[in-house]
Amino acid sequence: MKLLKVDTVKEVKDKLKLYFDAAGFVSPSESVPLREAVHRYLTEEICSDTDIPQFTRSVVDGYAVIAKDTFGTGESAPVFLEVVGTVEMGKDCKLKLEPGQAVYVPTGGMLPLGSDAMVMIEYVESLDENTIAVYKAVAPNSGIMNRGDDFKEGQILFLRGHRITVKDVGMLAAIGKDHVTVFKKPRVSILSTGDEIIDIAETPKPGEVRDINSYTIAAFAEATGARIGFIEKVPDVGHQLRSALEAALAESDIVLLSGGSSAGNKDMTAETIDAMGKPGVITHGIAMKPGKPTIIGIIETEINDGFMRNKLVVGLPGHPMAAIVAYDVIVNDFMKRYCFHNEEEPIRLTARITENIHAGEGRETYQLVSLKRAEGEREKARDSDPEWFAEPIHAKSGSISQLMLADGYVKISSLSEGVKMNSSVEVTLIGR
Amino acid sequence: MKLLKVDTVKEVKDKLKLYFDAAGFVSPSESVPLREAVHRYLTEEICSDTDIPQFTRSVVDGYAVIAKDTFGTGESAPVFLEVVGTVEMGKDCKLKLEPGQAVYVPTGGMLPLGSDAMVMIEYVESLDENTIAVYKAVAPNSGIMNRGDDFKEGQILFLRGHRITVKDVGMLAAIGKDHVTVFKKPRVSILSTGDEIIDIAETPKPGEVRDINSYTIAAFAEATGARIGFIEKVPDVGHQLRSALEAALAESDIVLLSGGSSAGNKDMTAETIDAMGKPGVITHGIAMKPGKPTIIGIIETEINDGFMRNKLVVGLPGHPMAAIVAYDVIVNDFMKRYCFHNEEEPIRLTARITENIHAGEGRETYQLVSLKRAEGEREKARDSDPEWFAEPIHAKSGSISQLMLADGYVKISSLSEGVKMNSSVEVTLIGR
Repeated sequence: MKLLKVDTVKEVKDKLKLYFDAAGFVSPSESVPLREAVHRYLTEEICSDTDIPQFTRSVVDGYAVIAKDTFGTGESAPVFLEVVGTVEMGKDCKLKLEPGQAVYVPTGGMLPLGSDAMVMIEYVESLDENTIAVYKAVAPNSGIMNRGDDFKEGQILFLRGHRITVKDVGMLAAIGKDHVTVFKKPRVSILSTGDEIIDIAETPKPGEVRDINSYTIAAFAEATGARIGFIEKVPDVGHQLRSALEAALAESDIVLLSGGSSAGNKDMTAETIDAMGKPGVITHGIAMKPGKPTIIGIIETEINDGFMRNKLVVGLPGHPMAAIVAYDVIVNDFMKRYCFHNEEEPIRLTARITENIHAGEGRETYQLVSLKRAEGEREKARDSDPEWFAEPIHAKSGSISQLMLADGYVKISSLSEGVKMNSSVEVTLIGR
Repeated sequence: MKLLKVDTVKEVKDKLKLYFDAAGFVSPSESVPLREAVHRYLTEEICSDTDIPQFTRSVVDGYAVIAKDTFGTGESAPVFLEVVGTVEMGKDCKLKLEPGQAVYVPTGGMLPLGSDAMVMIEYVESLDENTIAVYKAVAPNSGIMNRGDDFKEGQILFLRGHRITVKDVGMLAAIGKDHVTVFKKPRVSILSTGDEIIDIAETPKPGEVRDINSYTIAAFAEATGARIGFIEKVPDVGHQLRSALEAALAESDIVLLSGGSSAGNKDMTAETIDAMGKPGVITHGIAMKPGKPTIIGIIETEINDGFMRNKLVVGLPGHPMAAIVAYDVIVNDFMKRYCFHNEEEPIRLTARITENIHAGEGRETYQLVSLKRAEGEREKARDSDPEWFAEPIHAKSGSISQLMLADGYVKISSLSEGVKMNSSVEVTLIGR
């Protein structure tokens, strides 16, 4: 095994920036129907092209009035107003209110010109067809939503790179975006290397193991915005890996290699990546725990008539949990930056760590934790304490149950010596 | 408008329990490929049918040894062992180690019988083809994962009703579940009533509004596990609503009516539901804020040859945010209970509220909040304080931007008078 210097996470990100930012990596875009746009990333800023509401409307059932007409009225001293019409839902209102007049408006209906408030039906008595008694004074603007109250024409609603959430759909519908332009999903292919790997539907013979990693990595890649190209098992033979990687690169933006962590395997992975083209392997290992045996390569590829583009190849560690931490810290971060132009921070949860965590030694530590509610015997010390406890997971590396039990990880900087029991930590949730 | 008693949220849930639990509401199931199983709900407990790992394997590159043979060795005092073979990846290992012997095993390889530890290659010097010098003492079990270390045959991995997350996929792959049996997605149809409602692709004329609610509700329904049946706009005419609801009920498990909050509209909704069959409307309003004008009906329907099943009809409030709170508290909760048999609590986030919130008056309050990081001028008071501030959203009801700005809500019990500024609150995240 060649002994090569490992890069820090920051060094890795700087290198990637060099190849994908300076080179002007441009993500292709596509238009999708609003109903399919959830969890996609916007290619452009979206401004409102209209005031919302588009007209001043009532938010109650009752009568549109001129507020001043009601001043001084009360339960025992009503004011009498002339009813000059009724607003129909969905119709333009051509009426104009003069002092002393009122118009019936249902919830959501358009207010007539001249009116500036609504009196709820509960405070009104109908005396005859054309007259009402109003028993309550209302202030201007009460019971109505003015044109543009919600948002105004030209107002920026979403930035480029924004990840469309479920709760954004209503806003996009309000401004008539039945289609939105989003970044295409990067095509990610996964090659699973190792003579011992068999398909999960098969029954392993002694020495064989099911292909856990391909399924795990594919699930994380899809959940973080990728489209899965192909998934293939490749035996530990150099030329087979070479042709599989060549085929995968031709059809993908990103190729993930999931291999054993054996020395021979790592050498073969690095050699195969270098054989694909330039610049080849740029990182032979990362100063992080877990995730150290992560290999990163870049291959400049002609995609059409002389147009060159860099593609990313990442050799992930063989242990499932290390593979997922490396995926999250490197590949997911890469996709957010260069495929989706998204700079939004994920929501992290504050929790109290239940043990001392040793870290440091010049590498970033990602401690997997399981979240437990602060209940029962473990009462909160103070009202302001976090409601969650983060319990470090101690399953052996290589364990798959470790991943199932983990709600997230606590990142500990390479400059810190660790965190003390009972201190407050931030948990990045994973794989939910 | 009929003035009818409103139910508390608990009363509503008790009524639903009566009709859907006692009546033996059975959710149908289906088998789906593992790759499509994420975010579906398991119909049955899953136990491991095997030990994982299925054989004792190495987690390093090196030599399998009998740990006792290495005791007392060190950098200057190696022990010499006879190399009796090499384990091949993916192959059964028939070798049996005797004292004084060693076998080469790559990472992931099967340990030979008799061996109980691995010495990493870094601590070994190869003297000739059959002899190595070991420069480090190893304890039993070091560098290996024993059969069943990860989990054991018969161990319960997931309970019935569990929502399969991304991080569960690896575990299911490990035990060979290339298909899993999950509850079918309930078919949810949405009827949007109101003469003022137009399709979002159209340009509203004065008095008209785009159909924000159908899109919003459909997005939330899909995100919480439903399959959308049909979505239809229905004018405010009784017989049209009746035939649309009849058609929706025939094809759906749940029908959501999104109407204006006007009095006439509510009466029409209730009458139409009652006209569909028995028992009809069971709740004419809920003691919650927002969400009070929520109407709930149940219609017993023949689904095949005399087999009757209750279907749920919910008239949601017209204001988008009220509709979503009612959806989350009533419909989403209903689906989790009766369609998915899921009892898992969502992860809530602890935050510090930035204002006093007034509540009480016998109803549950759901205060929408926007989450902000505790940074900059607003430093954390103590290291143990939550990292998040929850800022109440004050947009008017009926506002759609209110929903976009909301990261979640703080639930305040009907027995509480509210929460004080700076106290610690739990935020239920919505629509992410």
